Amino acid sequence: MTRIDVGVLGATGMVGQQFALQLAGLPWFSLTWLAASERSEGRAYREAAPWRLPVPIPAEIADRQVEGCVPGRGPKVVFSALDAGVAGDIEQAFAAAGHIVVSNARNYRMDAVVPLLVPEVNPDHLALTSRQCASRGWKGAIVTNPNCSTVFLAMVLAALRDFEPRAVVVSTMQAVSGAGYPGVASLDILGNVVPFISNEEEKMESETKKILGRMGANGVEPHPVAISAHTNRVAVINGHTEAISVGFGVKPPEQEIKSALVTFAGRPQEMKLPTAPVKAIEYLEEQNRPQPRLDVDRGRGMTVTVGRLRACRVLDYKLVALGHNTVRGAAGAAVLNAELMHAEGRL
Amino acid sequence: MTRIDVGVLGATGMVGQQFALQLAGLPWFSLTWLAASERSEGRAYREAAPWRLPVPIPAEIADRQVEGCVPGRGPKVVFSALDAGVAGDIEQAFAAAGHIVVSNARNYRMDAVVPLLVPEVNPDHLALTSRQCASRGWKGAIVTNPNCSTVFLAMVLAALRDFEPRAVVVSTMQAVSGAGYPGVASLDILGNVVPFISNEEEKMESETKKILGRMGANGVEPHPVAISAHTNRVAVINGHTEAISVGFGVKPPEQEIKSALVTFAGRPQEMKLPTAPVKAIEYLEEQNRPQPRLDVDRGRGMTVTVGRLRACRVLDYKLVALGHNTVRGAAGAAVLNAELMHAEGRL
Amino acid sequence: MTRIDVGVLGATGMVGQQFALQLAGLPWFSLTWLAASERSEGRAYREAAPWRLPVPIPAEIADRQVEGCVPGRGPKVVFSALDAGVAGDIEQAFAAAGHIVVSNARNYRMDAVVPLLVPEVNPDHLALTSRQCASRGWKGAIVTNPNCSTVFLAMVLAALRDFEPRAVVVSTMQAVSGAGYPGVASLDILGNVVPFISNEEEKMESETKKILGRMGANGVEPHPVAISAHTNRVAVINGHTEAISVGFGVKPPEQEIKSALVTFAGRPQEMKLPTAPVKAIEYLEEQNRPQPRLDVDRGRGMTVTVGRLRACRVLDYKLVALGHNTVRGAAGAAVLNAELMHAEGRL
Amino acid sequence: MTRIDVGVLGATGMVGQQFALQLAGLPWFSLTWLAASERSEGRAYREAAPWRLPVPIPAEIADRQVEGCVPGRGPKVVFSALDAGVAGDIEQAFAAAGHIVVSNARNYRMDAVVPLLVPEVNPDHLALTSRQCASRGWKGAIVTNPNCSTVFLAMVLAALRDFEPRAVVVSTMQAVSGAGYPGVASLDILGNVVPFISNEEEKMESETKKILGRMGANGVEPHPVAISAHTNRVAVINGHTEAISVGFGVKPPEQEIKSALVTFAGRPQEMKLPTAPVKAIEYLEEQNRPQPRLDVDRGRGMTVTVGRLRACRVLDYKLVALGHNTVRGAAGAAVLNAELMHAEGRL
Repeated sequence: MTRIDVGVLGATGMVGQQFALQLAGLPWFSLTWLAASERSEGRAYREAAPWRLPVPIPAEIADRQVEGCVPGRGPKVVFSALDAGVAGDIEQAFAAAGHIVVSNARNYRMDAVVPLLVPEVNPDHLALTSRQCASRGWKGAIVTNPNCSTVFLAMVLAALRDFEPRAVVVSTMQAVSGAGYPGVASLDILGNVVPFISNEEEKMESETKKILGRMGANGVEPHPVAISAHTNRVAVINGHTEAISVGFGVKPPEQEIKSALVTFAGRPQEMKLPTAPVKAIEYLEEQNRPQPRLDVDRGRGMTVTVGRLRACRVLDYKLVALGHNTVRGAAGAAVLNAELMHAEGRL
Repeated sequence: MTRIDVGVLGATGMVGQQFALQLAGLPWFSLTWLAASERSEGRAYREAAPWRLPVPIPAEIADRQVEGCVPGRGPKVVFSALDAGVAGDIEQAFAAAGHIVVSNARNYRMDAVVPLLVPEVNPDHLALTSRQCASRGWKGAIVTNPNCSTVFLAMVLAALRDFEPRAVVVSTMQAVSGAGYPGVASLDILGNVVPFISNEEEKMESETKKILGRMGANGVEPHPVAISAHTNRVAVINGHTEAISVGFGVKPPEQEIKSALVTFAGRPQEMKLPTAPVKAIEYLEEQNRPQPRLDVDRGRGMTVTVGRLRACRVLDYKLVALGHNTVRGAAGAAVLNAELMHAEGRL
Repeated sequence: MTRIDVGVLGATGMVGQQFALQLAGLPWFSLTWLAASERSEGRAYREAAPWRLPVPIPAEIADRQVEGCVPGRGPKVVFSALDAGVAGDIEQAFAAAGHIVVSNARNYRMDAVVPLLVPEVNPDHLALTSRQCASRGWKGAIVTNPNCSTVFLAMVLAALRDFEPRAVVVSTMQAVSGAGYPGVASLDILGNVVPFISNEEEKMESETKKILGRMGANGVEPHPVAISAHTNRVAVINGHTEAISVGFGVKPPEQEIKSALVTFAGRPQEMKLPTAPVKAIEYLEEQNRPQPRLDVDRGRGMTVTVGRLRACRVLDYKLVALGHNTVRGAAGAAVLNAELMHAEGRL
Repeated sequence: MTRIDVGVLGATGMVGQQFALQLAGLPWFSLTWLAASERSEGRAYREAAPWRLPVPIPAEIADRQVEGCVPGRGPKVVFSALDAGVAGDIEQAFAAAGHIVVSNARNYRMDAVVPLLVPEVNPDHLALTSRQCASRGWKGAIVTNPNCSTVFLAMVLAALRDFEPRAVVVSTMQAVSGAGYPGVASLDILGNVVPFISNEEEKMESETKKILGRMGANGVEPHPVAISAHTNRVAVINGHTEAISVGFGVKPPEQEIKSALVTFAGRPQEMKLPTAPVKAIEYLEEQNRPQPRLDVDRGRGMTVTVGRLRACRVLDYKLVALGHNTVRGAAGAAVLNAELMHAEGRL
C-alpha cells in the first residue's frame, strides 16, 4: 500500500511538533509538507521549529523546507495545528480549496456541519461532512477533534451511555503542556495550583454534549446530560487527571459500570487502526491510580486510564480518569480521526 | 494578665513543631511543657525535634528539655499533636487525669461527647464537654479540631447555612505538608497527581456534617447536607485548594452568596481572639484566584480565601476555596479553639 | 525625622513590585511616586501592575496613579526597576536632570564612574559618584547593585578577603523569580534543570572583581581573583544556591574561615541601617544546609546563609551559599544602598 | 543462540524493578530468577514488588514466585540490586559459591580485586576477577558498576584521557530517583535544593580515579587526577546534571576536546553489545543543553549527553554533562557489564 501524503498547517509550534512526532513512522501517512507563517517560510524545519520535545526531531523532516499556508499547495490531507487566532480563516480557505482539514483547533468544533469526532464514540458524525459542500460550498472538508480535557470525559461517558448519564460534575487537574509554549509561566505553577483555564469549562460542558449527541435529520442533537466542569492547572508536564461524579437515568450496579468501562471499544479497535490503542479505556485496580507520571503513556498515550470507581453520595458514582493531553487530547486524536476517514474511504 | 501555661503532646513531630511555632509570641498562652515519646525524653527540644520549618526554631523553647507524655505532669492545658496511632489512649488518659486536651488528632472527632470545633461555626458545641465527665468520668476534657481539608469546606458551608445547603460535590488538590514528614515520597508527587488520600474523603463527608450539625438534647444532630468528596494530592507545599459545587434548599441570587461569604464572621472575630483573622473568609475577585502560592498566608494562614463563584449546571453554584492546611487546618485551628475556651472561661 | 520621598522607575513589572513591597513600612523612605511606561501612565497602580507577590499589594500605593518616566518629575531619589532594554537612556536622563538613581538594572554596573555597591563590602566605592559630574556632566548620580547571583558570592569572598582569594569555581542553582514574569516557561523548568542563563556567568565573573576591587586614584582596580561560574536554573521560586570552591593566597585553617564568615559585618550593621540584617552572613552547622525552602527568608531575605565548609581537593576550601535573589539580590540590595547613602548624607 | 539465565538479588526494591525492566526483551539474557528478603519469599513478584515505574511490569515476570537470596540456588549469573546494608555478606556468599555477581551495590567497588567497570572506559579491569579466586577463594566473582553520578564524569574524563586531566571541580544536580523509594521526602525537594547527598562526594572523588586508573602488576593504580565534587539534590525525577571544570596536563584547543567527546567509543560500540548506545557520548550544540527533561532518554538512557563546552577562567575548560541515573547510572550499567563479560566469554 502506498502511503498517503499529508501536511501540517502550523507545523512549527508546539502542537505542530507533536503532529510531526505523532506522524513519524505511521504506516498510512507520509508527512511531506510542513506549512507555517511567513516568518518561517523557506527555512529548514529544524531551524524554524525550536524543538522542545523529549524525543529528537525525526530525521526525515528535520531538513525539510517550511512552506507557506497557501490553499491549493501541499497534499490533499492536511492536519491543522494552527492557533485559534488564525485557524478560522486558514482552515476554511483550505476546505474551500478542496483539502481535507483534520483540525485540532477549536474554531469549527461547535459548527453545526463539522464533525467533532472521537472515533470510538461518534464515527457516524463523519456524515456531517457531506453537508459542508451544500451549505458552505467547500470542495473539501473540515473534521475536528475535541479540546484535550473533553476527550477523556467523553470517552468515559460514551462507555456508560447505556446507563443514560444525566448529570456530571467533573474537576480537572491539567498539565501545563496543554497550554503550549511558552504557555504557563513557571512562577504561576511551581508549587501552585491555578483554579482557572480560560474557556476550558465551557468547552468541556458543550463539546461533550455534541460528541455524545445523536445524528438526526438536522445534524447532531446534543446529548441531554448536564455537565458542570471545574478546570484547574497543576504542576504536571503531560496528563490531565479528572475527578468525575456522574448520575444516571438507570443506575446500574458498580460491577456493570466497571465492565462497561473495561470492554469499551469502537471502530478504531475493530478496524485495528494503526494509532488505535488495544484498549480504549484501561481500568486500574490500585486504589491510588491512575497517576499522570505512571500511567499517561499507556497505549502510547492513546489509552484513557480510569480507576477509583466508587459510590457517590450526591450523584450515583464517582471515578478518576486520566489521558495524555497532547496525544489522545490533540495530535494523536487528529491522526486517529484521519485514519478512521482513510479506513472508511473518505480521504 | 498572666499567661496560661500550656504544653504540647507529641511536640517533636511535624505537627508538634507547627504547634511550637504557632504558640510562639501569643499573648494568652505560654508554652512551657514539651512532651514526646520515650525516645525523645530528656533531650533538648532542638536535638529531639529535627526542625523542618522555614522559620527558625523559637529561641525560648530550643533548649527546653523534652518530657514524657505522663498524665498529671505538665500544665492543665495540653495541645495534642499526637499521631492517631497513639493519640487514642494518651489523650483519654490526660482527659481522665484532669487535663484539657485540645487535640488535632482524629481519634475523638466523631465521638458523640467530644466537640469537633470550628470557633466561627459551632462554638455552642463546646457544651458537649460537660457530658464527658458524666459519661466517661473524665475530670478534664477533650476538644478536637477537624481534618485539614474539612475546615475550609465547613467554613464555606457555614457562611451559606441560611440557604440550606443540600448537596455538595467537592474535589480537593491538597498540599504535601498535610501528610507530615517524611510523608509523601518525592517520586510520588513531583510532576504528578495522586488521586487518593487514605480516609480523607470519608473524613470530609462525615466531619462536615457534624460541624454543621445542631446541638440538641441528645448531642449533635448531623446536618442533612449530602457531601461527596474527591481528594487528591498535588505538588504544593502548603495550602489545600477545593473546587466546590453546591446545591441549596433555597437558591439565592449569586450576589447574596458572595455577600454571605464576605460578611461571614463569628465568635473569634467578635471577641477578637488573638489568633482570629480579621476576615474569616476573604473573597478574591480575580478570575484565577485563590492560588496557594499567592494566598495561603492571608490572615497569617487563618483566613479561608474564596473565589470564582459562578453558576453550576448540575447543582446551583460553584466556587473555589483555599486554606492553609497546617495553620487553619491544624495547629492554628487548635490554638483558636483554646483561645475560644479561654475567652469563655472554660480553661 | 521626616521621611524622604522616593520614586520607582519601572514600578509595574515584577522588580518594580518588589521595590514597592520592600519600601512599604520602612522608616526613612516614603514611596510617593510610581513611574512606568506610557501604557501604564494615568492608571491606578493596582490596575497597571498585575500583582504577583504572595503578600497583598500595600494599601498606601494601590490606588496611586502611575506616572510617566519623565526626568525632573518625581522626587530626587528614584529607584530603577527598569528593564535593561530601556534603563540605559532613562537612568542617564534622570541622573543628568539631578536625580539620584539607585538602580537594579545592569546597564551601568561596569561603568568606570558608577559604584557597583554592596554596603557591607565596598562602601568606599560610593566616592566614584563625585566623578560622574565631572566626566558626564550629571547633576545627579547613578549607583547600582550587582546581579543577584553576584551579591552572594561577593559577600562570601569579602568576608574572606584577608586570606587573599585567588581562584573561585562556582556553580549556581538559581530560582525562577530571577527571570521576572512571565520569565521561565513552566515546560522548561518543571522536573528539569536548564544549565544556561544568558550572560549570567559573565556578570558573576566580572562584577565580583569590581565589587572586591580597591578604590585607587583612577577609580576601581578590579580584584585579581580568577572566577569561573557555571549558572543553572532550577525549579525553585526564590533563592539562589551556590556551590563554591575557593583557593587562597594565604591558606588559613578551616576554623578561621568559619570565624571570618560568622563575624562578617560592615557599615550597614555598624550603622544599624533599617534594612540591614543583624547578621550579614549566617553560618548553618547542619550538614544539609542552607536550603532555599528553609533558609531564604533569614534576616528578612537580607542575610546570606552559608554552610558545608570543608576542604576542596582542587582549590583550598568549598562551601555552599544561599541568598534571596529578589531581596538581597535586587530590591533589598538597592534599598540598602540608598539607606547607606542617606546615613552618609549623600541623598 | 540460547539465552543465558540470569537472576536478580534484591529484585523487589526500586533498583530491582529497574533491573527487571532493563532485562526485559534483551537478546542474550533471560531473567528467570527473582530473589529478595524473606518477607517477599514465596509471593508472586507483582505482589511482592510495589511497582513504581511508568512502564507496566513485564508480563513474563509478574507472576513469577520470589525466592530467597540463597547462594547456590538460581542461575550462575546474578545481578545485585541489594541495599548496601546487606549486599556485603550476600554478594560475597554468592561469589564464594560460584556465582558471577554483577553488582550495582557500593560495597565492593573500591575493593582491590574487584573491577569497578565502565565497559567503554576500562574493560581491561575485568582481568582483576582472576585475583578473586586466589586472594578470596571465591569460585565465582564480583564485578561492580560505579555510583550513578560517577559514571557520567568518568566517561567524559575517559574521552579526554589523552589530554591528561589533572584537576576537576564538578557540581551535580541530581534526580530524586537516585535515592530509591520512598527516598527523598517531598517536603525536602519541592521547590527546593538540598546541597548534600550522604557520601556522594567521596564516591565521585575516589571511584572516578579507580575507573580511570591503569591496570598494573599489583592491580589498579588510581589515576592522578584531583577531583573535587559538590553534590546537590534537585527536583528532577530522572537525570543527573553535572557542571564540570577541568584542567589538563596538555591543554588542547577547544575543537579537539569536542572532537574527542563526539568520537568517544569503546568495546561496547565496537562489539555492538545489545545494551550499548550507538553514541556513548552525544554532544549537543544548543547553548542551553543538555537538560534532563529533554535529553535523559537518549540512547535508551545509555548515552551521556554533553554540551556547553567553553573556556574556564580557573581550570582549562568547562562543560555540562547529563546521564540517566537509573539506566546508565545503575541497572543499564550492570547489564552492559554483563554483556561485555558474555561477549568476552567470561560468563
